Amino acid sequence: MSIECKDITKQFGSTRALDQVSLTLEPGHIYGLLGNNGAGKSTLLSILTDRQLPDQGTVTVDGQPVRNNDAALHKVFMVGEQNFFPEDMKIKRALHTMTYFYPDFDLRRAHGLAKQFGLSLKKKIPALSTGYSSIFRLILGLSVNTPYVIFDEPVLGLDAQHRELFYRLLVEKFMAQSCTILLSTHLISEVENLIDHTIILREGRILRNAPTEELLTSAYTLSGPAGLVEQYTEGKQILTSHSLGGLKTVTLQEESTEPLPAGLERSSMRLQDYFISLQEAEDGTTERKDANHVYES
Amino acid sequence: MSIECKDITKQFGSTRALDQVSLTLEPGHIYGLLGNNGAGKSTLLSILTDRQLPDQGTVTVDGQPVRNNDAALHKVFMVGEQNFFPEDMKIKRALHTMTYFYPDFDLRRAHGLAKQFGLSLKKKIPALSTGYSSIFRLILGLSVNTPYVIFDEPVLGLDAQHRELFYRLLVEKFMAQSCTILLSTHLISEVENLIDHTIILREGRILRNAPTEELLTSAYTLSGPAGLVEQYTEGKQILTSHSLGGLKTVTLQEESTEPLPAGLERSSMRLQDYFISLQEAEDGTTERKDANHVYES
Repeated sequence: MSIECKDITKQFGSTRALDQVSLTLEPGHIYGLLGNNGAGKSTLLSILTDRQLPDQGTVTVDGQPVRNNDAALHKVFMVGEQNFFPEDMKIKRALHTMTYFYPDFDLRRAHGLAKQFGLSLKKKIPALSTGYSSIFRLILGLSVNTPYVIFDEPVLGLDAQHRELFYRLLVEKFMAQSCTILLSTHLISEVENLIDHTIILREGRILRNAPTEELLTSAYTLSGPAGLVEQYTEGKQILTSHSLGGLKTVTLQEESTEPLPAGLERSSMRLQDYFISLQEAEDGTTERKDANHVYES
Repeated sequence: MSIECKDITKQFGSTRALDQVSLTLEPGHIYGLLGNNGAGKSTLLSILTDRQLPDQGTVTVDGQPVRNNDAALHKVFMVGEQNFFPEDMKIKRALHTMTYFYPDFDLRRAHGLAKQFGLSLKKKIPALSTGYSSIFRLILGLSVNTPYVIFDEPVLGLDAQHRELFYRLLVEKFMAQSCTILLSTHLISEVENLIDHTIILREGRILRNAPTEELLTSAYTLSGPAGLVEQYTEGKQILTSHSLGGLKTVTLQEESTEPLPAGLERSSMRLQDYFISLQEAEDGTTERKDANHVYES
């Protein structure tokens, strides 16, 4: 019982969108798929759901290849960026249409969710704002009963209250149906406690694929007087380094176990900060001096 | 020297989008305009920049009414959701066009920013993804030299690394040009340390309008055994209340000064949590019992 991608490669012109990507999605997990714009997330999800063909590699669902295979594909529902409903269809009719394709679709739940999110059933799909278009799509994902559900940027344009509601409903669904969930999002700090397994994609390759907790204990931040920090970190794997006056803060890719020399301070990392540090390290912009590092996750 | 809105009211059919909104934006501040989808933020910004007419009320910039007043309007630049460039214009040409409308537009800086964000100057505007469309628009806002700059949802679809870059550049601009900035966003937790003044709009009315720090010290969270919490909070203004087993957590709208009875724990609020609590209190969904309150900001 799993979705398996093996050695997926996909080229668009001169760009290698995906380069030998292999991964397995197993039941009992909420996976987070993280990556910058252009990392290949959407391409991977399209291939996973047979909307695009890979140049190489295979995708199977519970052992069955997805290629032109309705039985396999019906086990996977994806809340993607595009709607597949006729342009001027009303919400109510679109929800009803879902029951033809997914006989287990919980229409009553969908109507209840629409009420909870304040989505009018009378609205036509193209008339929805960015936020309500996201709400319509996430209601579909929360109301299907497929064993695998994929959410691609589900909270785009949603306000903070609706995002919180979605995260809560997602966990409730996960606990009630023990489905496998894959969540692709840019709002990493908000899903840190939701996703128990993190996959980080960068330039078409998998950079990290591990339990979220394991990732977060594999790195830490160290601060102190520049001289002391440099002395302590010599020979260690530094992800990023920021200087401010005589002080220095570095991110280290290693577990933090040994006691520190006096004057140095260690702090654990939040997932979004770790993600950004990894990207900066890969960019090669490891060293940055600035007085205005104001961003806090 | 300020933008002043006085008693702005705007009705769409049976919906009162704005109801007697008055506010002043003064130099030396980065304002945050917060509100749920449908709160009236975009309508307010449209009226502020004379793209829509209010039913009642006036907007002045440095004492001059904005209505059909190019001199006043040229002091305000808004990065809105829509582009105002011809559909198939390329980025490079669009940036150059800006110099006709805003002679102080820093074209060199715009080119530099495009490089920093990885935005190709050769791309046509409609070919941009959601993320890159946001990047194009925020580059305009970062490169103009008007005394007032308004950003409406500038980071929609942006990945975490680009969001961090934008926040950093925004503070740099603010410090270099001492312009007045208004930032409307749903990603409240990320701008908490950026906006020194917070305006919260709800259903067309101003719910809060105060220095961010003042707002955050005006409320706190209290946790402990349900009985103790209920005893302590009797007669106090409770925003929200969550129960889990025998424990209770409430949000109180008051300054936290006096020492607490043993067994109770007080914690300060993050802006996004305060925002959500306020909305829940206004919704009247103050009491919530659930086992899955997983969301952390």
